[in-house]
Amino acid sequence: MSEKKRRAGASTDGPASSSKKPRPSAAASYAESLRSKLRPDASILVTLRSLASASSASSSKSKAAAKSLADHDPSADPASSYIVVADQDSASVTSRINRLVLAAARSILSGRGFSFAVPSRAASNQVYLPDLDRIVLVRRESARPFANVATARKATVTARVLSLVHAVLRRGIHVTKRDLFYTDVKLFGDQSQSDAVLDDVSCMLGCTRSSLHVVASEKGVVVGRLVFADDGDRIDCTRMGVGGKAIPPNIDRVSGIESDALFILLVEKDAAFMRLAEDRFYNRFPCIILTAKGQPDVATRLFLRRLKLELKLPVLALVDSDPYGLKILSVYMCGSKNMSYDSANLTTPDIKWLGVRPSDLDKYRVPEQCRLPMTDHDIKVGKELLEEDFVKQNQGWVKELETMLRTRQKAEIQALSSFGFQYLTEVYLPLKLQQQDWI
Amino acid sequence: MSEKKRRAGASTDGPASSSKKPRPSAAASYAESLRSKLRPDASILVTLRSLASASSASSSKSKAAAKSLADHDPSADPASSYIVVADQDSASVTSRINRLVLAAARSILSGRGFSFAVPSRAASNQVYLPDLDRIVLVRRESARPFANVATARKATVTARVLSLVHAVLRRGIHVTKRDLFYTDVKLFGDQSQSDAVLDDVSCMLGCTRSSLHVVASEKGVVVGRLVFADDGDRIDCTRMGVGGKAIPPNIDRVSGIESDALFILLVEKDAAFMRLAEDRFYNRFPCIILTAKGQPDVATRLFLRRLKLELKLPVLALVDSDPYGLKILSVYMCGSKNMSYDSANLTTPDIKWLGVRPSDLDKYRVPEQCRLPMTDHDIKVGKELLEEDFVKQNQGWVKELETMLRTRQKAEIQALSSFGFQYLTEVYLPLKLQQQDWI
Repeated sequence: MSEKKRRAGASTDGPASSSKKPRPSAAASYAESLRSKLRPDASILVTLRSLASASSASSSKSKAAAKSLADHDPSADPASSYIVVADQDSASVTSRINRLVLAAARSILSGRGFSFAVPSRAASNQVYLPDLDRIVLVRRESARPFANVATARKATVTARVLSLVHAVLRRGIHVTKRDLFYTDVKLFGDQSQSDAVLDDVSCMLGCTRSSLHVVASEKGVVVGRLVFADDGDRIDCTRMGVGGKAIPPNIDRVSGIESDALFILLVEKDAAFMRLAEDRFYNRFPCIILTAKGQPDVATRLFLRRLKLELKLPVLALVDSDPYGLKILSVYMCGSKNMSYDSANLTTPDIKWLGVRPSDLDKYRVPEQCRLPMTDHDIKVGKELLEEDFVKQNQGWVKELETMLRTRQKAEIQALSSFGFQYLTEVYLPLKLQQQDWI
Repeated sequence: MSEKKRRAGASTDGPASSSKKPRPSAAASYAESLRSKLRPDASILVTLRSLASASSASSSKSKAAAKSLADHDPSADPASSYIVVADQDSASVTSRINRLVLAAARSILSGRGFSFAVPSRAASNQVYLPDLDRIVLVRRESARPFANVATARKATVTARVLSLVHAVLRRGIHVTKRDLFYTDVKLFGDQSQSDAVLDDVSCMLGCTRSSLHVVASEKGVVVGRLVFADDGDRIDCTRMGVGGKAIPPNIDRVSGIESDALFILLVEKDAAFMRLAEDRFYNRFPCIILTAKGQPDVATRLFLRRLKLELKLPVLALVDSDPYGLKILSVYMCGSKNMSYDSANLTTPDIKWLGVRPSDLDKYRVPEQCRLPMTDHDIKVGKELLEEDFVKQNQGWVKELETMLRTRQKAEIQALSSFGFQYLTEVYLPLKLQQQDWI
């Protein structure tokens, strides 16, 4: 039975439908007509297979995955122009801390006191590099001497954080930023101070925050054609029911990633995730489905990056058609500004914008009442995005954003529910995949 | 090596520690001395086993689990005095909707138009019943006629929601409140309206919202000695790594619950959850550990209730020592006011307050700098809690809350990190369990 018939059938049970008959209208029947455009799944799978192998080929040609600062400008010494942190094992981080502290001790013994050279993480130091397609931090260090009224406190905090990180690494455990703060509330005063110094320490040691074993809390979940080990436990994500597997907070405990998926579907909201999980969309089109439930957290970004690097699969994104949806894509792709020094380890380049795109609203005839007017703030954010380099370099994105700003309309993924609760999984996404409709 | 030695060792690496030597002080060494009070795990397990069997015995004697409105006042007809909704299967909900709609149709055909009898969910109708230990809704229905300017719209919305729920049940799927809203934005206007009518429909049909297959988004995670099936997939929660298993949004897809745990540990925050999961606390003391990461969502509350009912295990709660922590406990135990009609299905009575309790701050000598002053708002909330019946009936709780209000101090679970990152799992919780220190 078609969805339309089902809904029509259901409506006849309710007297209220008489007052609303004119509504399930032109848009709804057009939406249904799209169903007939769908080719058999086998034919769509051929498309997806070629997409997956193309992605794998281009990845191995270093493009997305291996693009590094060294490729950026071979003439310059990258280490001296930009701060680049990398994942380091505990032994290496520990020895870096030891070296830093020994230098300080020697300096003290020679009667010169001590001082840390701390990279500046100010906004003016954060630049977008178009050929790397991410935000990086320009190297510009400032001294943080202990023997100076202005910096004595901060130098103390820095030393304390170094010592705490050292203790965590020695125990082989992971802690949260909040735990770190609570080990010395009197010194840190408030958490924003220990957090900021933790970022400083990352830059000073040249290693990622996850290498320091200080982890963010997790929000993300994953289901689909993926098997991995979380702290040694083998997780089969096709057998995680509707709830899915919570993405682990500590990426360094993730190993043994295997998959027969053809693509990764990155979803903004958990409502859409739930629909996809319940309909076991990944069994129809082999894929890995993940969501951070809104603003991406560090754990989910690290996890996505690992998947992309190891599996070399294309990443397709399903986000709301509003500036915020695009902003979320930008965080996955280019990083957030306040962690620009870690952008290489947190970002997943080359994510395709599958939907819901501003042009989809008319293309799929999303009813007028399911679109929302953009607020002044939305329009402001949209205009700012148009100025962002990462948007500018993709003409398709510029056009979509211009469409959004011209029509002043936005819509959530859920707006597709107006054609039936399963329209997303039964018509919209399959048709998108069939038509390779991503940019 | 003891935690104290480790930390002292770590400090000697850092020059800054010289400026802070006086601090890891009396409190820290007292905290360490508690470690020596710990008896062998085998002896603590004996305590826990007797707790578990006591809980199971008292449950089977109907106390916690089977306490129903019928027990409350056998002389009155409970159905007529309070709204009590229950889990219903899809067939039963569908036939209830059919009956309601047929009645409306007959009424229309007889020329009398139609009207719904909708239970009032106003605050004045929500009462706490001490012997049931939860908030319930007094039955008081009001008519919602279609042929009345004041109620025509709401009657239409009600009919529409009934028809949508009918469609969802027929398809055998689950949807979110947001999906429901988007099927008819023009009619509903904004989501608060469709949400409110959905609650009305629950009351009218006498069934829980999860029976309507309208689910909340999930936030909760679980690890530990628990095996269950999520939508047919067998989940072993001892093999869910550090990330844990996301609690499924649709409780009716959960089945086959098995466990050899001795208790359920309910944790307020995900930082503490992560510590417990990484240290595999459940392997040392067999338990099930779950958290809703803050304010409990419906999915986590339903899940906890199911565990408690089926496994008959004691539930011990680890929350922050502040009014908000106690408020969270109250939501798990007595329900939230705006879902009072569903309190029987959402609440888990008889949760023990393990910690962190206001008296623990002195008992465990939590350093002054890790305690926070209560804000005026905290004090206001705390005083309101003292007036709540569910607090009043537990003298231990009243005393603790009075202590909190007298000292005007609060503390997070993380404050225990000041004695070492693993103090929570290695000393605090084992000692609490050994001393049966819950109220």
